[in-house]
Amino acid sequence: MLEIDIDRLRRDLEELGRIGRDENGGVTRPSFSTPDLEARAWLRSRIESAGLAYRVDGAGNIFGRLAPDGAAPGSAPPKAKALMAGSHIDTVLNGGMFDGAAGVLAALECLRVIKASDVRLARPVEVAAFTDEEGNLVGDFLGSRAFLGRLKKEFLEKEMTSYGRPLRDILKRTDFTIESILNAHFEAPELEAYLELHIEQGPILEGEDVPIGIVNSVAGKHYRWCSFTGTASHAGTTPLELRQDAFLGLADFALRSTQLVATHHYGSMVTVGKVQVMPGAFSIVPGQADFSFEFRSHSAETLKTLERVLFNMADDIAATRGLGFASKIVDETKPVAISPRLTEILRTECQTLGYPWLMMPSGAGHDAQILAEATDAAMIFVPSPDGISHSPRETVRWEDLEKGANLLLQALVRLAT
Amino acid sequence: MLEIDIDRLRRDLEELGRIGRDENGGVTRPSFSTPDLEARAWLRSRIESAGLAYRVDGAGNIFGRLAPDGAAPGSAPPKAKALMAGSHIDTVLNGGMFDGAAGVLAALECLRVIKASDVRLARPVEVAAFTDEEGNLVGDFLGSRAFLGRLKKEFLEKEMTSYGRPLRDILKRTDFTIESILNAHFEAPELEAYLELHIEQGPILEGEDVPIGIVNSVAGKHYRWCSFTGTASHAGTTPLELRQDAFLGLADFALRSTQLVATHHYGSMVTVGKVQVMPGAFSIVPGQADFSFEFRSHSAETLKTLERVLFNMADDIAATRGLGFASKIVDETKPVAISPRLTEILRTECQTLGYPWLMMPSGAGHDAQILAEATDAAMIFVPSPDGISHSPRETVRWEDLEKGANLLLQALVRLAT
Repeated sequence: MLEIDIDRLRRDLEELGRIGRDENGGVTRPSFSTPDLEARAWLRSRIESAGLAYRVDGAGNIFGRLAPDGAAPGSAPPKAKALMAGSHIDTVLNGGMFDGAAGVLAALECLRVIKASDVRLARPVEVAAFTDEEGNLVGDFLGSRAFLGRLKKEFLEKEMTSYGRPLRDILKRTDFTIESILNAHFEAPELEAYLELHIEQGPILEGEDVPIGIVNSVAGKHYRWCSFTGTASHAGTTPLELRQDAFLGLADFALRSTQLVATHHYGSMVTVGKVQVMPGAFSIVPGQADFSFEFRSHSAETLKTLERVLFNMADDIAATRGLGFASKIVDETKPVAISPRLTEILRTECQTLGYPWLMMPSGAGHDAQILAEATDAAMIFVPSPDGISHSPRETVRWEDLEKGANLLLQALVRLAT
Repeated sequence: MLEIDIDRLRRDLEELGRIGRDENGGVTRPSFSTPDLEARAWLRSRIESAGLAYRVDGAGNIFGRLAPDGAAPGSAPPKAKALMAGSHIDTVLNGGMFDGAAGVLAALECLRVIKASDVRLARPVEVAAFTDEEGNLVGDFLGSRAFLGRLKKEFLEKEMTSYGRPLRDILKRTDFTIESILNAHFEAPELEAYLELHIEQGPILEGEDVPIGIVNSVAGKHYRWCSFTGTASHAGTTPLELRQDAFLGLADFALRSTQLVATHHYGSMVTVGKVQVMPGAFSIVPGQADFSFEFRSHSAETLKTLERVLFNMADDIAATRGLGFASKIVDETKPVAISPRLTEILRTECQTLGYPWLMMPSGAGHDAQILAEATDAAMIFVPSPDGISHSPRETVRWEDLEKGANLLLQALVRLAT
């Protein structure tokens, strides 16, 4: 049985992890930043020195193709649909070196092992690194959305990047344009399947002491930017019963919405992550509280129920407390079911390899959920120690990653032969 | 019976209110800012043209003295203790034109009326405008604290102003130094009593439809800067029951502390006014929530009880939710009892004048509470429409202010003759 070389994979991860290393010990490598451009050049050289055919599409998605036996690398795509494995190499600001990179470089390692083996491929196998999975530009999954032709011109032109500059500006330092992004899907090969290895970014696998998670669904999510509005007043002279304290409205809503989801919708999530209280000073009762509010579920029906119940709750709290409540939708994604054919293959291969595994949902979004709209897609999770990600403290145990990459390898071999 | 001239007082208030008028329609005139220096020059000219002896002490407190009959204006203080009335002319950022100014200019108007009358004074009467009541420099009440010699050199040198520059820097554009502030109290006259007219800054008088509040106590307050600390984690992958969400700790504390004070300590106040949640983004469970926490009461015993009960509550919430809690004291003032002799005089004069009045506590701090440490002090409140202050929408009804100023005038005449 083929095996990946964990030392080689580790060297790759550590090399890539040094690009964009920031002063807080994390990695800051958002798409099309200077470190990202450096990382792209590095990945290209790794793909080429592995003897794969390097290709980049109009959205900056990077591919390395291993052609089926008999076809020369880089030759015209044969009729057979391609098998793809990958993830992304961009990071959040001050993030870690494994989120995304582990999936791209594990796939690259698998392709190196397959290439050096006597496995006879029936179809091309590609490693993929999708642009801006983390959404530092204009929403999550720019690259995989472009790959499927799911983006609209108006969106790319109108939406501001998180740097407060339009996307067109950011693209000036790259080989890409809004037009090339919109046309990227015309260059995309037809896919047989897409596999993505990723760190769990949660505490479940570690808690269960299991090295492999096989993802069977990706949660849908609903993001809103909300406000309670009351009346700012003097905190020394406005009796408690006469206040219209916008922050207490938010506090009430955060607690009650959490309690409702925890007790009636186990497994779903609700979070207030960002809070701005105005005017925001000692001695002044808050007149306005703006906040991010999100909920996630693996069930489309639950998402619909939560939308109704939670915003009714917010309206009730506002009415009871003499406040106003308003919100606007920031993002919505539907839950994604993972291909049962692929999860079955992953399960069988785990058995063969003797690895314990857990079928589990993914609460975070991944490129795989976008790809799942067009092909069979599946994900392999490896444990995140302490559940930590998007942080300089994000890490992975090498023995877990080795197992995850070997599982990816066996699944690719099985699907490609 | 003497009467103040409300038109003259209104013209003064409107003139002063134009100095430091900001683009949001409010007044921004913190002590020693350019508009404040202009306002000081304007006040000096008003004092001098009223025929009063202008004086400024080392802390920038401005006085206008009406000498007892027989003494020439500006001559050496006679043995008789002085009677003082005043407030402050500095404002919060984007504040209103009545908070402070109403008290200074009503006192000035009273002195003009007394001077023009045939009232024979047994003691000097002074109008006072104390520096930085609003605490834009180094804590509230710089001027009145300096007037009583209550400031420490280390405090003035170490504490940063709210502009992020040391006080010594700010003083460079004035005639004052840290040393002159520390020595200001050596120039202070001995006081018979201090009276302060002020807008209520709360909704009570308007709610009761009463034009005059006679303050019988000033609340003590306790200011802390607090933090709940948990663990930032991915909002899509960290199950609700495994989270250490610092913001939910704060939400819980804000609601429960408010409920406790509202139900068990009626009339006391508790407020969370400023909130900073970190890292503060969609998709991230808050790892830290910093916030201002304050409570106020007219009873020293209640303040002590609240300090114990509320911070025990915070510790309990932290323990239950797997969070840390820490706090540091920002400011503490004791409740101040107002002189019964003076409130009795004010009450009697209200009866004579035929004005309805309400005995009431003051939740906000005022220079009078500092002066009360050294002399009999009392306050007259006039209604704040909609309870609004510290805002461009702060206002006063002229007929209420006329009543308040006439009451001040009668009380001054009674105390000075």
